[in-house]
This record gives sequence, structure tokens and C-alpha cells, in this order.
Amino acid sequence: MDEFALIERFFARRVAGRADIRLGIGDDAAVTRCDPDADLVIATDTIVEGTHFLPGTPAREIGHRCLAVNLSDLAAMGAEPRWCTLSLTMPDADPNWVDAFADGFFALAERYGVALIGGDTVHGPLSVTVTVHGLVATGQAICRGGARAGDLIFVTGVPGLAAAGLRALRDSATDAASAAVERFAYPEPRVAEGLALRGLATAMIDVSDGLAVDATRMLSASALGAAFDLSRLPLDVVGADDALELALTGGDDYELCFCLPPEREAELVRRSADWACRAIRIGRTRDERDIDWLLDGQPCEPAGAGFEHFPEQP
Amino acid sequence: MDEFALIERFFARRVAGRADIRLGIGDDAAVTRCDPDADLVIATDTIVEGTHFLPGTPAREIGHRCLAVNLSDLAAMGAEPRWCTLSLTMPDADPNWVDAFADGFFALAERYGVALIGGDTVHGPLSVTVTVHGLVATGQAICRGGARAGDLIFVTGVPGLAAAGLRALRDSATDAASAAVERFAYPEPRVAEGLALRGLATAMIDVSDGLAVDATRMLSASALGAAFDLSRLPLDVVGADDALELALTGGDDYELCFCLPPEREAELVRRSADWACRAIRIGRTRDERDIDWLLDGQPCEPAGAGFEHFPEQP
Repeated sequence: MDEFALIERFFARRVAGRADIRLGIGDDAAVTRCDPDADLVIATDTIVEGTHFLPGTPAREIGHRCLAVNLSDLAAMGAEPRWCTLSLTMPDADPNWVDAFADGFFALAERYGVALIGGDTVHGPLSVTVTVHGLVATGQAICRGGARAGDLIFVTGVPGLAAAGLRALRDSATDAASAAVERFAYPEPRVAEGLALRGLATAMIDVSDGLAVDATRMLSASALGAAFDLSRLPLDVVGADDALELALTGGDDYELCFCLPPEREAELVRRSADWACRAIRIGRTRDERDIDWLLDGQPCEPAGAGFEHFPEQP
Repeated sequence: MDEFALIERFFARRVAGRADIRLGIGDDAAVTRCDPDADLVIATDTIVEGTHFLPGTPAREIGHRCLAVNLSDLAAMGAEPRWCTLSLTMPDADPNWVDAFADGFFALAERYGVALIGGDTVHGPLSVTVTVHGLVATGQAICRGGARAGDLIFVTGVPGLAAAGLRALRDSATDAASAAVERFAYPEPRVAEGLALRGLATAMIDVSDGLAVDATRMLSASALGAAFDLSRLPLDVVGADDALELALTGGDDYELCFCLPPEREAELVRRSADWACRAIRIGRTRDERDIDWLLDGQPCEPAGAGFEHFPEQP
């Protein structure tokens, strides 16, 4: 089967229409319409076998993951997902594999109303690149650099849970940690939560490389320091002796870390009442650029530095 | 060096600003502005070592190629390039390699005013995915399916030249065919030509898999057949005994194949006077869905079927 027949068979027939798509899959490029009163938000992420997922990972999980990690980036901007492109590189064209991949991909795409508008299917070592497009009201995107001194810092969900799941998968101990494995295998982008934080969060980032690294990135972009008190993190849910370490440096969480002024905390409680996850207050920003990490009043400096693809050579 | 330092060092500092970019590299996503009276045109293509370029290809060529093949898709829609994302997967982080790659990438990006707004740098087998964004006046994108019976068919440049160059590279016979090698190594997307064809071409496609396959795709999308007379193709410039075969099935040309009504041919001559390449009339569409391939009045059915990544299993 040639690549075009593959695309036709597995993708084009499953694409849902949207009124803002003038031309989808099947031409040299796709053509869409933007809202005149909106900014266009664009993110792209690649996942590679052996780097971002284990060899032998079920195709359905890969189809979910490649889109989820990108939707997480849109969520962190407060953007509403619209369209995506998919570039799928694979060693051979196994219809069963592609079908399962598409199942995972479209289940998530349909949940968030994201239309596949184009892509590429090529021969090579297994990897997937997705580029997602979303819209946000003009000037309303939530950036990393908008926090102000005295803002409260929050994180969604259960940081560290996915890292515990990855470890269980690596140890083939899946029985022991099914919620953790599920969280790693099918990360749920916090799209609704990101949208709900528009006009409320002053800064936001998605937590993909570990809470310590990503929160530090947000603070750095905002030219602020912070004092963290991590005692409210749901470390018991992570279910590991080193739960704090996993929460701070484990990676693959795809949670949202964000800031807002103290006087808006009640509004956050109101807006988050129907969320699928909790928003936990973990710290407060300050003008002094240093960062204190405390747990129950004791220092707990993160040992690792989050995920690095290319560690510095000695 | 971690991946973020890499991005910072080699890419962020070389990014040119544009008034329509609200937020470029460095956040969870980029934020741009679309023109209210324009459609957004989006294309994505991946190139993989061993599939789309030879192992050992100079990094500068790869940086050029990954963007050129995408700009060619925009050109075929008559779209004006604006922004792109770049996802670079590589086995290790060699600063010299990345620097040369960036040289090739940005030389082409600057020529066409394309800003890099985001991307990803990950560890894995060498491959590059670019997603390009362009704008075209509302409803004016040139699609594959717009040709009408009786339209003339044209192709730009020298189809087959790049394939001759690839063969020379494979045979290490670079001295013998420097123009061909240059055309393969540094394909020039026909951006200005595509823009000039707005309001003139009824249908267009970029020729990447061979003229026979791509022209057939355009005719199929337009529900037409055609009679081709290839005697005006510059086969002597290809410089190979099998120049016709290379022109029809060789691939990697990144030329434009397009249609227009006979009464607009004079307008094409006028508009193409300052083009860097010629536009050569090669055929005429017709309602009957079959296709005749003639050279000097003799049938010359293409033997190959263009480039296929996943040949059908017997």
C-alpha cells in the first residue's frame, strides 16, 4: 500500500468537518479561516520511540500521546483547540498498527473538537510530530512571563503520578499502580482548565519536564523568585516512597502550573468547582529571584533537574 | 548542552521579527495575528535520513531542504509565506552540525520572509518536520481541483534535473553534473511564481513525486483527462539518456504544474517575463478522463509511478 492510500484509508475518512476549514486533507496544503477578533496560537511537539515512549508501546497510546502533549501546550496558553497536522514516520505500513494509532488519535481529537487538516506519512524510525492550532481572544493568551510579585502559585492534578506509572511499566509492575500507568499512558491535557483560567491566571506553563524545572521556567520568564510549600501536594496518591522527587523532577505530568493574585483565589475556587482535577496552591512569588522549596517547613531542594534530552558533557 | 540551550543558542537569536507575531519562540506556544481578509494556508512535511536525503548529507543542505519542500507546498496554493515551526530530531547535539543546519534554514527563510516561531529539539534518528503557514486573500487559494476542460497545462523549470543530480550524488559523479546536483541539493521553491499565478491558474500542484504522478493527481482532483505533448520539455538540460523518464517519474523537482484557460496564455507570458525559470506548455485538459503521453507525436507512457514510500506488497 502506498503512503497516499494509507492516508486516505486511515485518516481522511475519519476527519470531522468544521465550518472554519475551507480545504482539509488532500491538496498541497490546508486552508482555514481565523476569527477576526482572535489570535492564532501554534504549538508543535515530536515524540520519538525510545525517547518519549517505550519500544513496544501500543499504537493507540502513541496516537493519544502525540496529540495530548500538543494540546497541553495550547491549554497552557488558554487557547481553544481548532486544527492540527500530523506527520507520522514509521518503519513499515502495518494497517493494524495505523488503525490502532488512529483510534487513539481521533478519540482525543474528537473530545476536544480538533480537526486533522493535513499531514505527511513517511518511511523511517518511529516518530510522530503534531502541530496544533488554537484561537484565543486578541491579546488574551496566557504567557509564562506575566506573573507579579505576591501571586499565588498553583498546580493541577497529581504531579509525579505519570512518572510513577512509567517506572511501573519499565519494571513490568503494572498491577501495582494501574492509576499511575493509566496517567502515563493516556495523559489528559488540561484543555478545559486552561480555558477556564483566561482572564484569571497571570502566568501559566504546562508541566512536562517536572514541576521544579517548569515552575522555575515560569518564574524566570516573569523575572521573579518564589517560596514553595509543597505540603498540600497529593503525594500519597503518587504511591511511591520517593513521591516528592517524582513530583518535582519526574516529568510527563502534562499538568498546568499557574499564578494568580491572592484576591482572585476565591474566583479560582468558583471556576474550578467542576474540574476533573484539583488545583493545589503550592507557593507564592516574590521579587527576590531565589526559590525556596519547603515541605512541612523543611527545605526539600529538588535533586534532579528535570528531563534533559542532551545532558551537558563533562 | 540541554535541548533548550541548543534552541536558544542556534535558533532564537537568529529569528527575525515580524509585526504579525505577538509571541515567538520561548513559551508553550507561539501567538500570531492573521489578516482579517485572508485565509490561512498550512502545510507540513517531514524529511528523514535515508528516505528523503542520503546519509552524510551536509547539514546546510538538510536545513535548506526541510523548509524548501514545505514552501513549495505553499507556492502551489498561491500563498504568501509567513511563519513556520521546526521540529528537529537528531542522534546527538553537535553544535557545528546544528549551526550549519541553521545556516541553510535561515538563508532560505530570510529570502522569503518566513519567521521561525516555535519548535522542538529532541533526541532520536535524524529527521526534520517543518510546518509552514501562509496567507492568501479570502477564497483565492489555488487548489488541485479547479481545472476546466480545454485548459492548457504548464510546468515550471527543468523536470528531471534534480533526479539526475541525485543519481550523480549516488554515483559520486558530482563533477559531471554540477547544475543537476545543485538543483537536487538546494531545491528552490517557486514561491514568487506561485504568487504570480493567483487569479490566473485554475489549478496547481507542486511536482515532488514526478511530473507524471503529480499531474495525474491534479487532473484526478479536477475530474479531467489530458493529452500531453512533452516535446517542449528541456530534456537536453537534464543531461541524461533517460531524461524523459527522469522528468516524468524522477521526483524531487519542486516545480509547479498548473492549468489556465487558453485565452489567458498571453497573460502568463506577461507575468512570467521576470521569473527565474521558464513555464513550459506541456498539454491540454479534456473531459475524457484518460491521459495520453506523447513526445513528438509518439506515445511515451511513463514506466514508473513516481516515488512510493511503501511499495505495495505482492
